[in-house]
Amino acid sequence: MIRFNSDYLEGAHPRILERLMETNLAQTPGYGEDRFCEQARSTIRRLCDAPEADVQFLVGGTQANLTVLAAALLPYQGVISADSGHIAVHETGAIEATGHKVIALPCRDGKLEAGQVSEYCRKHFADESHEHMVMPAAVYLSCPTEVGTLYSREELSQLRAVCDRWNLTLYLDGARLGYGLAAPGNTLDLPFLARTCDAFTIGGTKQGMLFGEAVVIRSERLKQNFRYLIKQKGGMLAKGRLLGIQFEEMLKDGLYMELSRQAIVLAMQLKAAFIDLKVPFLVDSPTNQQFPILPNVVLPMLRDKYSYATIEAVDEAHTCVRFCTSWATRQMDVDRLIADLHVLLRKQ
Amino acid sequence: MIRFNSDYLEGAHPRILERLMETNLAQTPGYGEDRFCEQARSTIRRLCDAPEADVQFLVGGTQANLTVLAAALLPYQGVISADSGHIAVHETGAIEATGHKVIALPCRDGKLEAGQVSEYCRKHFADESHEHMVMPAAVYLSCPTEVGTLYSREELSQLRAVCDRWNLTLYLDGARLGYGLAAPGNTLDLPFLARTCDAFTIGGTKQGMLFGEAVVIRSERLKQNFRYLIKQKGGMLAKGRLLGIQFEEMLKDGLYMELSRQAIVLAMQLKAAFIDLKVPFLVDSPTNQQFPILPNVVLPMLRDKYSYATIEAVDEAHTCVRFCTSWATRQMDVDRLIADLHVLLRKQ
Amino acid sequence: MIRFNSDYLEGAHPRILERLMETNLAQTPGYGEDRFCEQARSTIRRLCDAPEADVQFLVGGTQANLTVLAAALLPYQGVISADSGHIAVHETGAIEATGHKVIALPCRDGKLEAGQVSEYCRKHFADESHEHMVMPAAVYLSCPTEVGTLYSREELSQLRAVCDRWNLTLYLDGARLGYGLAAPGNTLDLPFLARTCDAFTIGGTKQGMLFGEAVVIRSERLKQNFRYLIKQKGGMLAKGRLLGIQFEEMLKDGLYMELSRQAIVLAMQLKAAFIDLKVPFLVDSPTNQQFPILPNVVLPMLRDKYSYATIEAVDEAHTCVRFCTSWATRQMDVDRLIADLHVLLRKQ
Amino acid sequence: MIRFNSDYLEGAHPRILERLMETNLAQTPGYGEDRFCEQARSTIRRLCDAPEADVQFLVGGTQANLTVLAAALLPYQGVISADSGHIAVHETGAIEATGHKVIALPCRDGKLEAGQVSEYCRKHFADESHEHMVMPAAVYLSCPTEVGTLYSREELSQLRAVCDRWNLTLYLDGARLGYGLAAPGNTLDLPFLARTCDAFTIGGTKQGMLFGEAVVIRSERLKQNFRYLIKQKGGMLAKGRLLGIQFEEMLKDGLYMELSRQAIVLAMQLKAAFIDLKVPFLVDSPTNQQFPILPNVVLPMLRDKYSYATIEAVDEAHTCVRFCTSWATRQMDVDRLIADLHVLLRKQ
Repeated sequence: MIRFNSDYLEGAHPRILERLMETNLAQTPGYGEDRFCEQARSTIRRLCDAPEADVQFLVGGTQANLTVLAAALLPYQGVISADSGHIAVHETGAIEATGHKVIALPCRDGKLEAGQVSEYCRKHFADESHEHMVMPAAVYLSCPTEVGTLYSREELSQLRAVCDRWNLTLYLDGARLGYGLAAPGNTLDLPFLARTCDAFTIGGTKQGMLFGEAVVIRSERLKQNFRYLIKQKGGMLAKGRLLGIQFEEMLKDGLYMELSRQAIVLAMQLKAAFIDLKVPFLVDSPTNQQFPILPNVVLPMLRDKYSYATIEAVDEAHTCVRFCTSWATRQMDVDRLIADLHVLLRKQ
Repeated sequence: MIRFNSDYLEGAHPRILERLMETNLAQTPGYGEDRFCEQARSTIRRLCDAPEADVQFLVGGTQANLTVLAAALLPYQGVISADSGHIAVHETGAIEATGHKVIALPCRDGKLEAGQVSEYCRKHFADESHEHMVMPAAVYLSCPTEVGTLYSREELSQLRAVCDRWNLTLYLDGARLGYGLAAPGNTLDLPFLARTCDAFTIGGTKQGMLFGEAVVIRSERLKQNFRYLIKQKGGMLAKGRLLGIQFEEMLKDGLYMELSRQAIVLAMQLKAAFIDLKVPFLVDSPTNQQFPILPNVVLPMLRDKYSYATIEAVDEAHTCVRFCTSWATRQMDVDRLIADLHVLLRKQ
Repeated sequence: MIRFNSDYLEGAHPRILERLMETNLAQTPGYGEDRFCEQARSTIRRLCDAPEADVQFLVGGTQANLTVLAAALLPYQGVISADSGHIAVHETGAIEATGHKVIALPCRDGKLEAGQVSEYCRKHFADESHEHMVMPAAVYLSCPTEVGTLYSREELSQLRAVCDRWNLTLYLDGARLGYGLAAPGNTLDLPFLARTCDAFTIGGTKQGMLFGEAVVIRSERLKQNFRYLIKQKGGMLAKGRLLGIQFEEMLKDGLYMELSRQAIVLAMQLKAAFIDLKVPFLVDSPTNQQFPILPNVVLPMLRDKYSYATIEAVDEAHTCVRFCTSWATRQMDVDRLIADLHVLLRKQ
Repeated sequence: MIRFNSDYLEGAHPRILERLMETNLAQTPGYGEDRFCEQARSTIRRLCDAPEADVQFLVGGTQANLTVLAAALLPYQGVISADSGHIAVHETGAIEATGHKVIALPCRDGKLEAGQVSEYCRKHFADESHEHMVMPAAVYLSCPTEVGTLYSREELSQLRAVCDRWNLTLYLDGARLGYGLAAPGNTLDLPFLARTCDAFTIGGTKQGMLFGEAVVIRSERLKQNFRYLIKQKGGMLAKGRLLGIQFEEMLKDGLYMELSRQAIVLAMQLKAAFIDLKVPFLVDSPTNQQFPILPNVVLPMLRDKYSYATIEAVDEAHTCVRFCTSWATRQMDVDRLIADLHVLLRKQ
């Protein structure tokens, strides 16, 4: 069985484990206040061209999302998200569990548009009963989105302008950020994100680390006492150094982007193969997640050798599935999959 | 200015105030444990043909909804509601503030259908990632709905069956229940509701009382320690007797239904006038809320003499508005409104 | 049975009911945005000498407490309270249910001292692990306290200084405020409270109204969007006018203080009788709640004719109980009680 | 600087890292549903002699505590804890943030006594106002406690009986469980804990793993849908295998207890040295945390070479501090510390 069902199937890049070995017996204070975390913070600030940013390290994405949004929202406020957004669908109501509504707006391609956010806010404040409705106060974006699409620099700038207009916190979930930054046609970079978002994450778990999300915070209000909230929400790792060590190793000399680019090369080979085979996609993704719509008849044979995620039935004869590449995907496995796809689909 | 914008514009039916006068200096224990509440509980159990039901009295509808649903749901569970449901739109995220997602399903006419609830549950439990999603565990209905429509006995029975199938608590918000029970074509009655729902409310605020919602609870699990929750959520009225006195006066000899019927008669006169004038409706409502779609040009003149609620722009030239009748609406005011509508709309 | 067990045993002062009658059929907008509420707000601002204060009306005390504190606290913050404070003991965890710890400090006589609050804060911020502990961010006082005692002007000023020093919101729960203001030796008045507290309540329920607490808000941060929170927490009364009408009637010409004084006169007669009879007290209360420590042998006979609240067993032979007077207590009932006490206790 | 301030100063035992290396590129499903977790579950069930127990793996202790207690409590219920309990003091209100009061009872030596729990419950349910108070519904114990003490088999059995009597969930936080099981005089073992508690944790973070707490669940009610709650609270590690791999390595052949015993040997050497030097203790701890009360005059010199945690000033001239040993503590560092203590303290 060769697994393509997600990008967190293996452990970590060998350099990560080696670095954990090297540093293993050094004694440090706990809770992310050690020198390894300081160094990684400093590296991230430099890469983001944001010397005054606060950087905090958390273990996982749901934890990062719920902690940032709990810091951003007052009790009667909610966060606007695409209806396919991770917080709206796949975090078991983690945001609601902190007391806040996720205001899910219908989206094509997993992306919120500045116009629809603006219109929602305008309507809210124009409504004579607005005190009876949850006040929109933050925008959650994922980038890449849950369906592998990317925001452009222009789109994010427009969203920023809307957030300024309506006093919304702009938060971007970058669980797969590297795969986005390495994507063909991408116009984003870390300094732009740091200038544009109030907070965003640089994902580690899906990018070659054992685990870890770095939260980059620009908003002064969010920075304040953020660590109290990390502790309260159960996200403060006793041996916080593990996060600092991993992020420093990934970021100090470009390993993060190198691994991202490698995954994208393989994803684009797979995408080209599907196109070649006239397989349509749920959405045109330039990143490591590909969503082909396959004839149901080929699925059992495919499933014998490969794992993938089932997204949804598109019609009676076709199903949308997801194949992911990652930092750990091997060229030979992609070659084999493409070869098998040719055999299976040419027969049809 | 004659007001038709809602059904809570006045105080209470004179008999309510008189009864409060008569009982004013009687000394009673607090918190709903007095003889007046006991009597009203007993009357409600009798009218519902549900001798073993628990009956609790709360001041308002949002309070009732959030308290019942907080009792019904475990932390990772959510409540299914029509996307137009009061809890989904007009309670400032009260349910989310107790930690639970409102799972809003798209609805015509404000009504959930058994089929869509069933399909949502089936999909949830079939999804391989279901532990990453909020578990559906209750159904919230309003009846009459926010747009004045009613569930039939058959529709409610089907929803009950779905709730049994998927282990969902069925809760019906009857803030305007009397206006529904008095509506032409209605097939529901209190004993049926008590047999069918795990809990439902009999609304007082909009039906001629100063305030008050009676929660009728059939589910043993919900009954348990429900008063702890009322207290915690701020809904335990010190002078709880005020609720018992009012409900008893309304229900002991049919005043509740008499006032409801009277409001419906006037609403139907208004509805007939709109039909006569070829005014279309947002929805066909048999209850005290009517949602005509009026030409924008008549609105300023109408507004000079009458208040109504603005619902939404339907197109550039038309707006859907809401006119409510209530226990306090006077025949002469409806006559005057109808006469003016004829003048205004015939001109068009 | 003559009841002295609490101060919410009857309905309301007759003038309240008469005023509700007079205004009953006037049509007004809902949710506290009517002219009666505006008038009452204006009267309260005038009495508090606080023209820029925000005044909101809520139905009950637990609701007021939880709504104000939810507005005051960020998720990782808690509120300091006397360990006998209403929020610490008798609101079924209402504050915790909004996510916040009640930091209960041990108190004599139900009163927090400025020094202990200051010391708690100093220790918190000096602790190297302070991020692992709930940050103190508000102070809850009740005045009169749960045992009938009062803060002096000097004590409140000292607490204010501590709150300024440590950036704490100062909130005073005045559920029985009138009985405090009318107490012998009292040094407080409304303008002083409005100058000193960030928010405080003027209680109605226990002071002759059917129900109602007025929240006077001085802090700009608390004022902001406070009504969203009232709605979310279930405290927004549809017919909000009922609160405005009652408060206006109580406050417009001094009825509130007149009723308070009358209750205090009777409480002092009762207190003098206990002193005369050598009955000790749990605490020296100058307000309408008296806490005598009675020999257990007299309780059964007393209980035949009078209700009182049982507070605690003091030793094997004595029990502390509570007698309350109120706006509704009659001179003849106090006379009778005193006469019976003389008979019962002289025998001992 | 040699660090004795806590037991999470280093990475992990080398065997842990080696095992992570070996398994690194194996592909597995995420979220703890992999074969490594299954194996570790099976090992834990075997060691606990509890074949039907549910075992879930979480990253940290606060996360484990808040997730288990959120599963155990209904909204109006609270958890009883020693006032020194981790959840009562050092988790930034994590339990309150899930809506529940921590009912902190005063304790000597960090231990709850069965009698005081029972008495608290008796009083609660006997109180006529009990619906106005948080209902006690769970007991939180830490073992070893925050001050290094241990419950005996008899004490736990008595607590179990009280929990049965009052329908309380018994939860034991075993963040340092190994150090307790290896302590001189200990009477507990895993099968006894599994028989006695509704849920307990076997701590990994402080015992030689990078991170990780195993939650052993015996209560059927807690088992149900527990994974939904782990996800919602942000505790579901994407690469859950990391937890399974570590626990299996620690437990499969006794490494966990071997490391625990080694730490206890060193702690007892340190304890003996303090006794020898007539240094009193805050409490008599048989585990890896020692709480000597040292003269302030020696602290600056000590601090030059060793880190320790400052607990509290005992009097003007003495301070209680904490020294921890752990799986990583070296004999030579303890020897050096003891030698220095002799020099420093003999001078006094």
